[in-house]
Amino acid sequence: MNVNAPVGVFDSGVGGLTVAREIMRQAPEESLVYFGDTARVPYGSKSRDTILRYVRQIVRFLETKEVKAIVIACNTASAYTLETIEKEVDVPVIGVIKPGAKTAAESTVNGRIGVIATEATISSGLYPKFIRSLNPKLKVFSKACPLFCPLVEEGLTHDFVTEEIARRYLADLQQKDIDTLILGCTHYPLLRSMLSRIMGVEVQLVNPAYETAIGLKHLLAENHLNAQKLDVDPVHEFYVSDGAEKFKIFANSILPYDIKTTHVINIEEY
Amino acid sequence: MNVNAPVGVFDSGVGGLTVAREIMRQAPEESLVYFGDTARVPYGSKSRDTILRYVRQIVRFLETKEVKAIVIACNTASAYTLETIEKEVDVPVIGVIKPGAKTAAESTVNGRIGVIATEATISSGLYPKFIRSLNPKLKVFSKACPLFCPLVEEGLTHDFVTEEIARRYLADLQQKDIDTLILGCTHYPLLRSMLSRIMGVEVQLVNPAYETAIGLKHLLAENHLNAQKLDVDPVHEFYVSDGAEKFKIFANSILPYDIKTTHVINIEEY
Repeated sequence: MNVNAPVGVFDSGVGGLTVAREIMRQAPEESLVYFGDTARVPYGSKSRDTILRYVRQIVRFLETKEVKAIVIACNTASAYTLETIEKEVDVPVIGVIKPGAKTAAESTVNGRIGVIATEATISSGLYPKFIRSLNPKLKVFSKACPLFCPLVEEGLTHDFVTEEIARRYLADLQQKDIDTLILGCTHYPLLRSMLSRIMGVEVQLVNPAYETAIGLKHLLAENHLNAQKLDVDPVHEFYVSDGAEKFKIFANSILPYDIKTTHVINIEEY
Repeated sequence: MNVNAPVGVFDSGVGGLTVAREIMRQAPEESLVYFGDTARVPYGSKSRDTILRYVRQIVRFLETKEVKAIVIACNTASAYTLETIEKEVDVPVIGVIKPGAKTAAESTVNGRIGVIATEATISSGLYPKFIRSLNPKLKVFSKACPLFCPLVEEGLTHDFVTEEIARRYLADLQQKDIDTLILGCTHYPLLRSMLSRIMGVEVQLVNPAYETAIGLKHLLAENHLNAQKLDVDPVHEFYVSDGAEKFKIFANSILPYDIKTTHVINIEEY
């Protein structure tokens, strides 16, 4: 395996760019191939069977790019497919759920953790399962927030409408005396300041993107796959299944530099 | 062609059920095969190429059901694919845009018409194009309302948050002195009372579902395809690409009777 091969990172759309951004910060020497499934976004309201079929196609696409590792930068896809995909591919695979669960389990003081995510991620029950496997005494309270993604994609990250919706979604969690809240969807870190205002500064917000990037570095090291520093810069390639221009605009608002080209592929062919 | 063959009706998801409901009312003797592309919903934010590829797969599926006519019960799909699909299939095809545009053009008194729809339908420019082809003097004002679908699917049809979003979306149209507003997405009729309150009772709301059902009856008659009254009841079959149970719950809240079974198919295989 070529250690300077790219890491494959994928998401149902643009949200996984918050994870890609964190990898660029934590592992700036790594080349990346990012795929956003913008033709079939969102995943959060779909079933396990459908998501697994989509993820298998994406993995086959990433394999054509000869990636040395795969990051499932989507909570829903991680929840439903990580265990299966790990068995099916030859390269190391990491999702965002285990790193987020681990950080939350290590951070909580009072042992009460909240999780907000899409309907599919919450239904999967994987955050509570992983957290309890680390420490069976921890209590986990979950809440699906299906409107957060469309509100963020509409740009209403600092709007009283989003805050009103957030107050409704979080009302139950506010009663649970949690001291840690996992932002279990890659869009939610973009609502961080609002969520912190509602929950109070004493509640620590966990963004799994950060821990996933750290986890990726460890995973590459374990497998002797960290990129060697070369004279040439690492390469970041971006692929989507639809709407390259729209993706580029969103990407350029999130990433630390402007991306030049985004390629559209027909993911159903993989 | 068997006149008692079913009519194929499809949409990106559940919204087209408002059209199916209208067909059941206007043409109760017709059997229907409904397909909702719930694995790839929504279409409203996707590109023409992607939507055309999806619609061709759906049409191939409906052909296996030997439908005698096809209703594109989705504004976005009608906007982007009707002209192409009409040329590619042997059975009559009707979309929701032309019937809605025709009704609006005939209803307006002051010649000023508003259209609200998804981003894709508005970008297509087809409502203004059809309306002006009927009467070049008419003025059309358009506005995309991307949050309406997720808000309706979250059940917030009578909520002040939805009303606040609606007031923002409609603010420009309120200044245009329109007397007719086309509800250019199949979800929007579920917001009818709120939209009427905001725009004022003097603005007539056009629901293309009604005119599409009437248009279908005419189209069948022209082609000598109206169902014969038989001793057996017409059959309504429902297919989706994901989430049969969720679809059934929504369908049973919209249709005049409870549907018993919904079949899941892998639409990518067509």
